[in-house]
Amino acid sequence: MDYEFLKFLALILLSTKLFGLVTRKIKLPQVVGALLAGVFLGPACLGLIEKTDFISSLSELGVILLMFTVGMETDIGELKKSGKASFVIALCGVIVPLLGGFAVAKLWGIGENGQGAPAILQQFFIGVILTATSVSITVETLKELGKMSTRAGNAILGAALIDDILGIIALTVITSLAGGGEGADTAPLWLVLVKIVAFFIVAILAAVVYHIVYIKWRDHDRKDLRRHTIVSFVFCLALAWIAEEFFGVADITGAFLAGLALSGSTNVKYTTSKFDTLSYMLLSPVFFTSVGLSMTSIKMGSNLIWFTVAIVLIALATKVVGCGLGAKVCRYTGKESLQIGVGMISRGEVALIVAQKGAGLGLIDEKFFVPIIIMVVFTTIITPVLLKFVFKGQADENVDSQLVRNIEERQKFEEQIQELSRK
Amino acid sequence: MDYEFLKFLALILLSTKLFGLVTRKIKLPQVVGALLAGVFLGPACLGLIEKTDFISSLSELGVILLMFTVGMETDIGELKKSGKASFVIALCGVIVPLLGGFAVAKLWGIGENGQGAPAILQQFFIGVILTATSVSITVETLKELGKMSTRAGNAILGAALIDDILGIIALTVITSLAGGGEGADTAPLWLVLVKIVAFFIVAILAAVVYHIVYIKWRDHDRKDLRRHTIVSFVFCLALAWIAEEFFGVADITGAFLAGLALSGSTNVKYTTSKFDTLSYMLLSPVFFTSVGLSMTSIKMGSNLIWFTVAIVLIALATKVVGCGLGAKVCRYTGKESLQIGVGMISRGEVALIVAQKGAGLGLIDEKFFVPIIIMVVFTTIITPVLLKFVFKGQADENVDSQLVRNIEERQKFEEQIQELSRK
Repeated sequence: MDYEFLKFLALILLSTKLFGLVTRKIKLPQVVGALLAGVFLGPACLGLIEKTDFISSLSELGVILLMFTVGMETDIGELKKSGKASFVIALCGVIVPLLGGFAVAKLWGIGENGQGAPAILQQFFIGVILTATSVSITVETLKELGKMSTRAGNAILGAALIDDILGIIALTVITSLAGGGEGADTAPLWLVLVKIVAFFIVAILAAVVYHIVYIKWRDHDRKDLRRHTIVSFVFCLALAWIAEEFFGVADITGAFLAGLALSGSTNVKYTTSKFDTLSYMLLSPVFFTSVGLSMTSIKMGSNLIWFTVAIVLIALATKVVGCGLGAKVCRYTGKESLQIGVGMISRGEVALIVAQKGAGLGLIDEKFFVPIIIMVVFTTIITPVLLKFVFKGQADENVDSQLVRNIEERQKFEEQIQELSRK
Repeated sequence: MDYEFLKFLALILLSTKLFGLVTRKIKLPQVVGALLAGVFLGPACLGLIEKTDFISSLSELGVILLMFTVGMETDIGELKKSGKASFVIALCGVIVPLLGGFAVAKLWGIGENGQGAPAILQQFFIGVILTATSVSITVETLKELGKMSTRAGNAILGAALIDDILGIIALTVITSLAGGGEGADTAPLWLVLVKIVAFFIVAILAAVVYHIVYIKWRDHDRKDLRRHTIVSFVFCLALAWIAEEFFGVADITGAFLAGLALSGSTNVKYTTSKFDTLSYMLLSPVFFTSVGLSMTSIKMGSNLIWFTVAIVLIALATKVVGCGLGAKVCRYTGKESLQIGVGMISRGEVALIVAQKGAGLGLIDEKFFVPIIIMVVFTTIITPVLLKFVFKGQADENVDSQLVRNIEERQKFEEQIQELSRK
């Protein structure tokens, strides 16, 4: 038995927490700190941690749980209500960055050296990475500004939900196309699509069966919530595994669908809080650090520096233009369209999850992790600044939003638990 | 990337839960179910799960957390109060099973085939496995009978605390003696003892430094309990790693001491509840299953069957005689001494943790896992039966016990959290 993994875990947890505290002090999300911790501990700087199989598997488990939680937190009821406008905004906000990323990658000739997946897939993959919006920083900023309940605020929340799902579809298609990983033949498009559709059908059937069995069981035994949490975990792991093993679909797609299937059920708050504990105490730090560990060097050639600049600008411009255009089509005012576009700029952990996933399939060379990490960090920093600017001088319209209340309720609930546990 | 581990985890979680439910229905602890799940899934039966490096490391992490929690839940204040009587009872209750186990092992000539650690260590190791008492089932039974607050009940609780610590010392000495694992030379006794003492000093110093830094920090920032939990996790992992790496001491000894160091601090309830979540959702099921996985065959030769019978009887008799004798010396009545002895019979997860630890060091052949699992299961089943018998016809004396109240408070607190989360 080798005990190195204990040292690795101790270093990962300690440094993500320390870096997280520092980034929080300067009002950046803690994710940024965790990423930097990985870069700092990994081969690019100190070289204290290697990416062992244990770390890789734990990190993969962390990603699966993250996507499972994203799925569980998707409010399908809200999704239906948010309606056509949100859908159009999200769709334009996915297509424009997808094409923009592809164009930049094409211009730089990415993937044309014959390594990894076919060049066109690698180029589209850069686009897929740019699609994933993370609105948590936007929500925080808008709440702080008291603009959460404006028309623009509501549109952002609705569009972000749909954005997640569209992004997952794009990811599913491209990872399935890359199929067996580096060197393997690319599967024909029709077969890939048939497999994806087949998996979605299986997932829906599984969800229906789960709900029927679950509701029977829950009525039979309402007391022990722990076991419900474990059973939902098993459901998530099983769908993730089935996706990879039998359909060539990404495991995180399976995990997301599993989460979506549970999103409406009772006890979902309790379940989510338990998975949160599992995530923040062990799995998330390992995942974010392992992204940082993938950076083998922080020295960048001038070509890569220019690529970074381009990708950051394109990430910024395509969301503003795409979402703004979508909003304008749906008869939002020019100012509102700009606000919506700006609100959708920030990318977060999902972009990293997607990148990490692609690396394993030969869809992206790990040297591009540096530009992507910089893109994530930059869009996260710039969003609040730009938001304050575009919302300046506007009175709060105080439209009520169920979603905002949900988030607030959840926070209150968490505070209550903390309060209780301090007694 | 290999996705088998997702399937393994799903199977482990599902089957430990299912077996756990069944064993609970027939009033056995869920641990028994988890063990059986491992046997069922492993090479002895279905062969669905292999013991990969990932499973082994995760299981080791589970053990570390279990011992950390045992340490945290040790009430040092109560330990001081429980006084001389509890100490004498615990000491006799450790020495007699240690010698009894050694005698049986010697009789069967265990370890004399030249494999693994020196024979005498392997023989003493069987004794060490027999020392660890687990009183949770006793506490449950006594509460049910309304006898928790009797003189005997109090003595059992006090002795069980000290038993844990004495057991850890025995384990530390013997694992350190076995040193570098199979095939390696045995270190001289004096060097091993020096290293152990040195590690205890380092652990105490670390605890003092931790407390000084921690209290400063806590006063500075009382709000975010999460980070305190993570820092205590880092402390545990670091001590576990340092123990193995620099002192040749078992990692679980380090984890236990780390827990002990934190046992008096505020927020310990909150911290423990978070580690509980991490344990029951992932790490404990993996650990118990992996013990079951170690059983490569459930076919037993007649020699092994007789050894099993002997070890079960010796486990039973030595605790009753050892603890009973200790109690008698401390002027408990004959009946009380018997009650105390019977209350200390049941072995639990610690015996399995010790056995698992020894297997990695060549201190025990894995074929003896079958007798040990049977011993744990049998002593756990028989304890409540015998307790009901020896406590028959005695009125409850209703002496108040802080410890019982503590346990009740904790349960109430957990129910409150569940209640809250259901809203």
